[in-house]
Amino acid sequence: MTITGKLLINGEWIDGQAGTYHAVDPATGQELPPSLSKASIEQVKQAVAAAEAASSEFRRMPLQKRAGFLRACAEEIMALGEILVTRAMAETGLPKARIEGERGRTCGQLNLFADTILTGEFLDVRIDTALPDRQPLPRLDLRYMNQAIGPVVVFGASNFPLAFSVAGGDTASALAAGCPVLVKGHSSHPGTSELVAQAIARAARSTAMPAGVFSLLMGSGREVGSALVSAPEVKAVGFTGSFAGGMTLVRLAAERPEPIPVFTEMGSLNPVVLLPEALEKDAEKIAEGFIGSLNLGVGQFCTNPGLVLGIEGPALDRFVESAAGHLAQQPAGVMLNEGISQAYTQGVATISGQPGVNKMAVGEARDGKAGFCGQPTLLSVSAADFIANHQLTEEMFGPASILVRCRNLDELLAALKSLKGQLTGTIHAAAGEMADYDELIDELSQRVGRLLVNGFPTGVEVCHAMVHGGPFPATSDVRFTSVGTAAIKRFLRPICLQNYPGELFPEALQDSNPLNIWRLVNGERSRSPL
Amino acid sequence: MTITGKLLINGEWIDGQAGTYHAVDPATGQELPPSLSKASIEQVKQAVAAAEAASSEFRRMPLQKRAGFLRACAEEIMALGEILVTRAMAETGLPKARIEGERGRTCGQLNLFADTILTGEFLDVRIDTALPDRQPLPRLDLRYMNQAIGPVVVFGASNFPLAFSVAGGDTASALAAGCPVLVKGHSSHPGTSELVAQAIARAARSTAMPAGVFSLLMGSGREVGSALVSAPEVKAVGFTGSFAGGMTLVRLAAERPEPIPVFTEMGSLNPVVLLPEALEKDAEKIAEGFIGSLNLGVGQFCTNPGLVLGIEGPALDRFVESAAGHLAQQPAGVMLNEGISQAYTQGVATISGQPGVNKMAVGEARDGKAGFCGQPTLLSVSAADFIANHQLTEEMFGPASILVRCRNLDELLAALKSLKGQLTGTIHAAAGEMADYDELIDELSQRVGRLLVNGFPTGVEVCHAMVHGGPFPATSDVRFTSVGTAAIKRFLRPICLQNYPGELFPEALQDSNPLNIWRLVNGERSRSPL
Repeated sequence: MTITGKLLINGEWIDGQAGTYHAVDPATGQELPPSLSKASIEQVKQAVAAAEAASSEFRRMPLQKRAGFLRACAEEIMALGEILVTRAMAETGLPKARIEGERGRTCGQLNLFADTILTGEFLDVRIDTALPDRQPLPRLDLRYMNQAIGPVVVFGASNFPLAFSVAGGDTASALAAGCPVLVKGHSSHPGTSELVAQAIARAARSTAMPAGVFSLLMGSGREVGSALVSAPEVKAVGFTGSFAGGMTLVRLAAERPEPIPVFTEMGSLNPVVLLPEALEKDAEKIAEGFIGSLNLGVGQFCTNPGLVLGIEGPALDRFVESAAGHLAQQPAGVMLNEGISQAYTQGVATISGQPGVNKMAVGEARDGKAGFCGQPTLLSVSAADFIANHQLTEEMFGPASILVRCRNLDELLAALKSLKGQLTGTIHAAAGEMADYDELIDELSQRVGRLLVNGFPTGVEVCHAMVHGGPFPATSDVRFTSVGTAAIKRFLRPICLQNYPGELFPEALQDSNPLNIWRLVNGERSRSPL
Repeated sequence: MTITGKLLINGEWIDGQAGTYHAVDPATGQELPPSLSKASIEQVKQAVAAAEAASSEFRRMPLQKRAGFLRACAEEIMALGEILVTRAMAETGLPKARIEGERGRTCGQLNLFADTILTGEFLDVRIDTALPDRQPLPRLDLRYMNQAIGPVVVFGASNFPLAFSVAGGDTASALAAGCPVLVKGHSSHPGTSELVAQAIARAARSTAMPAGVFSLLMGSGREVGSALVSAPEVKAVGFTGSFAGGMTLVRLAAERPEPIPVFTEMGSLNPVVLLPEALEKDAEKIAEGFIGSLNLGVGQFCTNPGLVLGIEGPALDRFVESAAGHLAQQPAGVMLNEGISQAYTQGVATISGQPGVNKMAVGEARDGKAGFCGQPTLLSVSAADFIANHQLTEEMFGPASILVRCRNLDELLAALKSLKGQLTGTIHAAAGEMADYDELIDELSQRVGRLLVNGFPTGVEVCHAMVHGGPFPATSDVRFTSVGTAAIKRFLRPICLQNYPGELFPEALQDSNPLNIWRLVNGERSRSPL
């Protein structure tokens, strides 16, 4: 369990043939040993061919066996022990409790998908039985089920080195669907990536998976990433990161001779709307919760609340005063890498310099601190200036937020209508207050994947009902979530068997329903045998 | 109920501002009265704005009311009576029985979607209840449901003037989902399109739908079609037609600032595999069924069997002899329009001239017949020549098929592996025979949306278990079907409500489950109240 700098291709650990690099500790700016290697285009092709070769076996294996692989991945990740935690901390600047929590979420996610596939819900089995005597024409027996779409490329995200990286939500849902996975690891935590891939490789061996079921490739997005997305055998792509990076992949996939689906989760402002009664009653409490959410993980969450909207008056002033007070006490935290820290500092400077934007409060400065830090910042702007300037809807990835001061409800509505798609929208409302804001709620709900009340958007529950998605440009495909069990839908496609011999049906379609799953039989939900 | 040549925009019938044209009777080549008008780009924008304005009300209305609209559409189409049948026959050259059958399918489809939405299955409701005492953090109440994606553009297909045109499968599923629909009618049956749109407009009025819920625009694909697909308010596109036409839309939608999903159902060869025992036993019977399927509707079905694969020997010779005999008796039928007839004739000539291709039989020649006809044609080629020449996998849209003569199973497998994605694949097998062909079946199943045994692919049942879709290039998105109730999935997106006030939940999410629908509650299927 040491970091070797090798790549995982077709079940073997191999030196990359396209040069070497080092991980960097963002708390010091120093390189971390050992030397690591990058994949060549030829090695990408080998990994893709291995994934394709594994496809049929992996797609068709019993669900129990596939679930066993997912559970073994979770066990092997836990078995990595302290080396994983230590390395992830060194590569990301994130504290121990966060890394341990994220490890728990990662393993919980793998186990949840194991449980989920055994319920068979994801198969969406539909059976229309034969009607031999129907007039004018008989109906033949028709049976429908979902199956794996084929090899999937997953891009590790910088901001979740475990839960949205090598064995994160995209990988777990794609493997659960029965798709071999090719991970393009993030260069911001390459050692962490290798350790997790080692765990997956051990799990794959111990549960007798085909060799190409999982590969880890490191290297640049422009070369290794593009080669993966362009490979004809690849059938879908999962990505979490910047708008520019995500759209590059979306366009690349669309230009292939055979276009393929790409699920990119990009930027989001996650607007928080403060309704008047709630503000009147709880301005200080909401302000405290808001600043806590804003600074969680140095603001490096997709669901970070980067925009707050309220109607001017004494209650909003109380909110501002309280929020500014809390913010001023926040330390400048170490960000994930130099690029993110620089982009954050520059983004805050750009937005701060826009017409009508005021700096209301900042946290501790980064001066004198080693490493790549981000200074918490709260800005404000009038609704009129906000609506007039599209630049103010650019995400500042980090602990910064803009308060939009609205003179009245009409201005608040106009500001909301000027927003593009978001992952989340939040409403703070007193009991019964929301009933008076139907239009506002409808406008907000049309712009988000998750609408939450009296809370904050950070903290994304991994469960059946979660939607971590949303209208463009929050994601490239509003029809899917990347967190929660519904994420598996991204990697499935239906097939229909007509007049098929009963003895050849996969278990899910057999008359006796040996998996005891819920099926749609002649339009009715049923778990009974036919 | 007369044809006016007007367009339906925002619930009003308006003269198009971009010139006039006439429908053409393909059986005579003569123009049909009256003069018809084309939409201007400005009129497209008006229709799109009306659809957007109708979105919120249509999305949120009670399911019973939406179902009532779908049923009223079916009733109003039937109420058109003979004028619809007569006009559709004149515009398409299709016989009365076919038009009447298609009308029945169209109305049945609308009623099936009405029934389907009332079951609530399409909402995919998921509820994870609050766990206030969970450690280390409580879980908040989370509720997930699907809702309409927004305005949808539907392109009428030439080959189904009713069932895949103005009120066809795409329109029915999009309306059922709660999406306003903008139809770009097909110029091959414009009068039919207007009559059906009149029926929908009457249904919309009588059931008090918002004015922009449905629009009919006529004009060229390059102008009206492109303007529709490029409109920012449009959120999805459905299309059935040629590969070139479909890919133009796919690329156009992908290049938008906000890419949107496009569901194009394009070409397909629909391979039919004849296993040796089946051939030995039933060569003549299969041949008869095959020629019947090939010539149905002058071969103008997406699922027309354009490719047959068998292993050489006396049984295959019997099949050929019988098929040739049946084919020779087939008349040259009137095709849908001049372009289709010309493309068919030219396609057959091009494929016939390829190395190793032999013409085995032709039906009655078109000589002397008025109008735009297509001559039934059966070609043959060796597996080696087939695999070597990609041009042989070009669809000849019409009553032509190629028999691929394989020397052995390996050649048959190789020929299958050379195929791209298909809507359907068919296997003819004797009892128990398929068990010996696992690899062949797996390879075929990976290339199709529907795999059928001992039948023919024409005749697509509208039911819950149907998949009319398949891997690229049969469609642009293997994850969806365009026929059957699962077609509604194309036009939905999930939203999650977190910690939402109980009194504001839509009915589908309420604790008491007033719609009595099946929901996934904490991971378990349930119809019980919470």
